[in-house]
Amino acid sequence: MDWQSRSRQRKQQQLDSIPSDWRVDPPSDDQLNVIDFPRTCGLLTPFELEITEADIEVLLFKLAHAEWSCLDVTRAFYKRAVVAQQLTNCLTEIFVDRALEQARELDEYLRIHGKPKGPLHGLPISDQFTIKGLETIMGYVGWIGNIADRDCVIVEILRECGANIFVRTNVPQTLIWGETFNHVFGRTVNPYNRLCTPGGSSGGEGALLAMRGSAIGVGTDIGGSVRIPSAFCGLYTLRPSYERLPYQGALNSAQGQESISSVLGPMTNSIAGVKIFTKAVLDAKPWTKDPLCFKKSWDEAGYQLAEHGNGKSLCFAMLWDNGVIKPHPPMYRAMKMVKAALEAAGHKVVVDWVNYKHMDLFHVAEYIWAADGVEAFTKDCALSGEPLVQLEHFTTDETRDLYKLDIPPLNKFLWQLHKQKRQLRKEYLDHWEATVEITGTGRPVDGIISPPTPYGATPHGLNTDAFYTTLWNILDYATAGFPVTTVDPILDAQKPPPHEFYNHEDEAIYNLCKWNPVIHVLEAHLFYPDDVELFKDSPIGLQITGRTLEEEAVIGMAELIDAALKAHHI
Amino acid sequence: MDWQSRSRQRKQQQLDSIPSDWRVDPPSDDQLNVIDFPRTCGLLTPFELEITEADIEVLLFKLAHAEWSCLDVTRAFYKRAVVAQQLTNCLTEIFVDRALEQARELDEYLRIHGKPKGPLHGLPISDQFTIKGLETIMGYVGWIGNIADRDCVIVEILRECGANIFVRTNVPQTLIWGETFNHVFGRTVNPYNRLCTPGGSSGGEGALLAMRGSAIGVGTDIGGSVRIPSAFCGLYTLRPSYERLPYQGALNSAQGQESISSVLGPMTNSIAGVKIFTKAVLDAKPWTKDPLCFKKSWDEAGYQLAEHGNGKSLCFAMLWDNGVIKPHPPMYRAMKMVKAALEAAGHKVVVDWVNYKHMDLFHVAEYIWAADGVEAFTKDCALSGEPLVQLEHFTTDETRDLYKLDIPPLNKFLWQLHKQKRQLRKEYLDHWEATVEITGTGRPVDGIISPPTPYGATPHGLNTDAFYTTLWNILDYATAGFPVTTVDPILDAQKPPPHEFYNHEDEAIYNLCKWNPVIHVLEAHLFYPDDVELFKDSPIGLQITGRTLEEEAVIGMAELIDAALKAHHI
Repeated sequence: MDWQSRSRQRKQQQLDSIPSDWRVDPPSDDQLNVIDFPRTCGLLTPFELEITEADIEVLLFKLAHAEWSCLDVTRAFYKRAVVAQQLTNCLTEIFVDRALEQARELDEYLRIHGKPKGPLHGLPISDQFTIKGLETIMGYVGWIGNIADRDCVIVEILRECGANIFVRTNVPQTLIWGETFNHVFGRTVNPYNRLCTPGGSSGGEGALLAMRGSAIGVGTDIGGSVRIPSAFCGLYTLRPSYERLPYQGALNSAQGQESISSVLGPMTNSIAGVKIFTKAVLDAKPWTKDPLCFKKSWDEAGYQLAEHGNGKSLCFAMLWDNGVIKPHPPMYRAMKMVKAALEAAGHKVVVDWVNYKHMDLFHVAEYIWAADGVEAFTKDCALSGEPLVQLEHFTTDETRDLYKLDIPPLNKFLWQLHKQKRQLRKEYLDHWEATVEITGTGRPVDGIISPPTPYGATPHGLNTDAFYTTLWNILDYATAGFPVTTVDPILDAQKPPPHEFYNHEDEAIYNLCKWNPVIHVLEAHLFYPDDVELFKDSPIGLQITGRTLEEEAVIGMAELIDAALKAHHI
Repeated sequence: MDWQSRSRQRKQQQLDSIPSDWRVDPPSDDQLNVIDFPRTCGLLTPFELEITEADIEVLLFKLAHAEWSCLDVTRAFYKRAVVAQQLTNCLTEIFVDRALEQARELDEYLRIHGKPKGPLHGLPISDQFTIKGLETIMGYVGWIGNIADRDCVIVEILRECGANIFVRTNVPQTLIWGETFNHVFGRTVNPYNRLCTPGGSSGGEGALLAMRGSAIGVGTDIGGSVRIPSAFCGLYTLRPSYERLPYQGALNSAQGQESISSVLGPMTNSIAGVKIFTKAVLDAKPWTKDPLCFKKSWDEAGYQLAEHGNGKSLCFAMLWDNGVIKPHPPMYRAMKMVKAALEAAGHKVVVDWVNYKHMDLFHVAEYIWAADGVEAFTKDCALSGEPLVQLEHFTTDETRDLYKLDIPPLNKFLWQLHKQKRQLRKEYLDHWEATVEITGTGRPVDGIISPPTPYGATPHGLNTDAFYTTLWNILDYATAGFPVTTVDPILDAQKPPPHEFYNHEDEAIYNLCKWNPVIHVLEAHLFYPDDVELFKDSPIGLQITGRTLEEEAVIGMAELIDAALKAHHI
C-alpha cells in the first residue's frame, strides 16, 4: 500500500474511534478563536465543565477522597479532549473504552484499599509515550502498526502514581520542529487562533491543554518542544535537565544522540501542576527503572529557594534580546510586566543579561543535531516512502537549515563538537558566576527571565526560530515556562522602527510584525486575514532559567513570578 | 629535533630537578621488593618517617592545629616521593621549590587567620592534572612544553581546600592502558616487585602512594585506571560515576568522547582518605565551576547507608568470575576472606552474582573507545613522530585489540552504540533490581564484590585484561577499591585444574598461573625469575560496586568491609 493510502486509512481509523454521540458541530472556519467552544457546545454537562476547569489540587483532593470518581473525571476530560480534537486536530490514538476501564479499576482500588493508589490517583494524563498494546507512531507513516509490548518508564511510573493515561497527542514528523504537522494525523492548530500554530513538537498537548482537555500533558523537549507550545497556548511547563526525569523506553527519531538530549516535561494549566507532576515522578525513584536517570530525590529545600535567599529579594536578570533575533513588541511588553511585578514584590530585577557567544552555541547545536547527516529522519521516512517535510523559509527558497548542513558525519568531528560545547558551557557558567559582583545579594543572578520565542503564535509554517529555547537546551539549564498575557490589538499594534538587523532571518522576523504578502507556507489553501490580525489572541509566555539540575528552584521561582504577576496586574 | 632527543632532554631535565642531597643509592636490581626502602635509606629523619606514615586524620589534625607545619609535612613527603622516584620511576614534573613555597604560604595563612584554609589544609596531594605554569605532558612527547595558563577545576578546588599539590605522577601513552609506560618518562615499576607493573593508567600514583610518598593521589579512570593500580599497589580508591567530580580543564587524549566518560578519583592508603577527599571536593560545590558536574551535594545519609539497612545485615553479591576471564587463585582466596569476614560481622553474603550479557557490554565499550578510528591517539603521537605504543599480546603476534577494530567511524554508528548501551544498561538494572526476590532483606543486593583484575600485579607487558573494572565504567556504577591480602607463595602456589576456557585470552591467562617461557614483552632485557616468583609479593585488592551516583554508599560499604576484614583476619 502506498504511504498516502496507509495514512488515509489510519486517519479514518482515528475518526472512527470517536464515539458517535461525542461528535460536535464545529464552528465555521472563520471563527479563529475557539477556546470557549467546549463550554458552549453542549456536549459537556455542568458537572463535567466543573471537573475539567477545577484547579489540579481540588481535582486530586476530590479524587483521593472519592468525592469525584475517576470514571466521571476521565469521562469528562475525554469528552472535552474529543471536542478539542474536532476543532484543533490535537490527538493521535484515541482509546475511550480502555481509559474508562482503567478508571473503573482505579475507583475499585480506592474502594478496596480505602486509600488512593498514589499521589496522582485518578488524574487523567495525556502524553506521546510508549504504552503497552498501543501504537507509537510519532509522526511517521512507517511507524503505523508499531505496537508496544511494554510501557516506557514514565508511563509505568505515572500508573504507579495512580494516573490514568487516557489519550495520546500529536507531534510533528522528526519531532525536532516548532510546529505540529505530520503525514499520518495532519496538522494541529492553535485554539486561540486556528490560523496559527500551537507550536511544537508537543503541539498536540498545547492545543489540548489550552482547551482543558487534559489535566496534565507530558511532552518532550530537545530544543524547545514543551516550552514553545506552552508559550503559544498559555500554559505552564518545565524543561528539566538531561536525565532528571526518566526517558527510558520512550521512542523518538535519532535516538542514541546523547550530546544534547531530549528530555520530558509536564505541560499544564498551573505551576502547581508542574510541581505535583515533578515531585510525584521523583518520589517514585525513577533511577531504579531508568539507568540514565540521575539518583537525585525531590529537593524540597531547593524548591523553597534555600540557595536563593529563601525566596526573598531575589535578583533576576532580564534577557530582552538574545542578539540573534530581536523579539516582537508583545514579548517586550510581557518582560516589562514581569519586571514591574517582581519589583513591586520586593525583588531586584536590576540586571540586564549580557549575551555571551550565543551564535557559537547555536552552531554547535545545529551541527550536533545533524551529525548523522539526518540519516535517522530519512530512514524513518523511507520505511513508508513518505517525503521528509521540507520547511520552506518564508524569506528564501531554502529548505530547513537542519537538512542542508554540509558536515562530515564522523565521530571524531562529533567529539570535537563536544569539546567546543564543554568549553562554551564552562565560559557561560563563569559568565553567570561573575554576576555575583553586580547583584548586591551576595549571590550570582538567581534566574534569567527571557522570551521563549521572539513572537506569539505564528501563522502555520512561519515559526522558523527556536533559538530562544534551544540556548538553554545546549547549556542544559533547567527552565520553566509560564504565561503572562495575550497579544493586545492596541498595545502591540505599533511596529517598532527598524533596528540594525543581526542577520537575514532577524530582518524577516522583524518584517513579520507587519504582514508581508510574499510568503510561502506549506499549505497554500490556508486563509490569512489582514495584517492587524496576524498574531490575534495569541498567548504570550516567558521562561525562567536556573542552573543545571535546579528543577525545584525554577519551579519555585516560576511560582513566585506567577504570584507577583497576579498580585500586580489584576 | 627528533622525538628521541626531545624525550631524552626532558628526562634529563627531570633528573636535574631532584635536589642533589636527596639522591639515594638504590638497592641492586635483583631486590624486587623495595617497599621498605624509604625507611632504611637514611634520607628521611624519624620525624619525617612519622609524618609520612601517619594516618590521614592525624596528619590533617596536626596540620590544622599547627602542631606540624605544612613546610615540614611537604618536605617529608617530597623527600619520600623522590626516593620512590629513584626506585620506581613514578613521577613526572618535580617542582620542589614551588611546593615548599606554597607550603610556607599555607603556614602563613594559618598564622594570620588563626584557622586552616580548608578541610585539606596543608595536605600534600599528587596528581596528573593541569596546573598553571607547569607542563601537562600526559605521556606524549609532542606535549612537552605544553604549559598551562590556568589550573583545571579539580586543582583549583583542592587549593581552595588548602591542599598543597606538590608533585605530578606518571601515566601511559594514550591513558587507556592498564600499565604505565610512555616515551617521555619511561616505565613505572611496582615497588612490591619491580619486575611487575604497578598497573595503569594512574600507575605513577600507585607506586608513589604504596611507598607513602604522598598523602592522597588523584587519578583518572575510564576503564579501570584508578582501580587497577590501586589493586596492584595495595591502595584504597573510588571510581565515581560520570561527572560526579569535576573533570573540567583536565587534559586527556580523545577528549570529547562522552559515551563512556573518564572520571577522576582519589587513591590513598585508607578508606578514610577516600571519604575525606570526596566530601571536601563536593562541599566545594564543583558544579559552580564545572558545567558538566552534577549539582548533588555530599549525601551523609547515603554514606551512613540509610538506604542499605543503616549498615546492618547488608546483603552482598559475590562476583567470583565474570564469565570472560577466570581469575587466578589469590583472587578467589581474597573473595573468600571477605565473604567470611562479612558473615562473621553479621552480614548476608548469600548471593552469587549472576553474569548478564557481559560480552555484549564489552563489545559496546570496545567500539565506543575506538569510534574515532583511534585518530586522537595517532594525532597526538604525530605531533612528535613518536610511535603509538603497540602492546604485544603474549599469546599472539597481534597488536592491542583497540587499535585493530574495523569499525565505521560514523556518528550514526556511535548513536547506534548509545542505543545498545542504554538497552543493556536497562537490562542490567532490571537484573539487579530483580535480586530483591532472593536477598531476604526486602532490598535488592546492596553491593557487588568482585576482583578488579583476574590476577595480581603482572610482569610488565602482561596486564592484558581490564574487563573486571571496565564493566562498571560501561554501566557507570560507583565503585570503591580496597586491599585484602598479598600473594602467598604457599597458599596461592597451586595451579588449579584447567576449566573449559571461555576464549583464547582466558586460556592464556590461565597458563600464566604457571610460568610460560614463550612470552613477548616490550623490553626483552627485563630479567624474570623462575615460575614460583611470578606474582611474588603482589598486593591483592577487590572492588565493591553500588549503583550510579551512589558514591557515598560505596565508600560506606568499603569502610564496613575493611573493618570486617580487620576484625576477622588479625
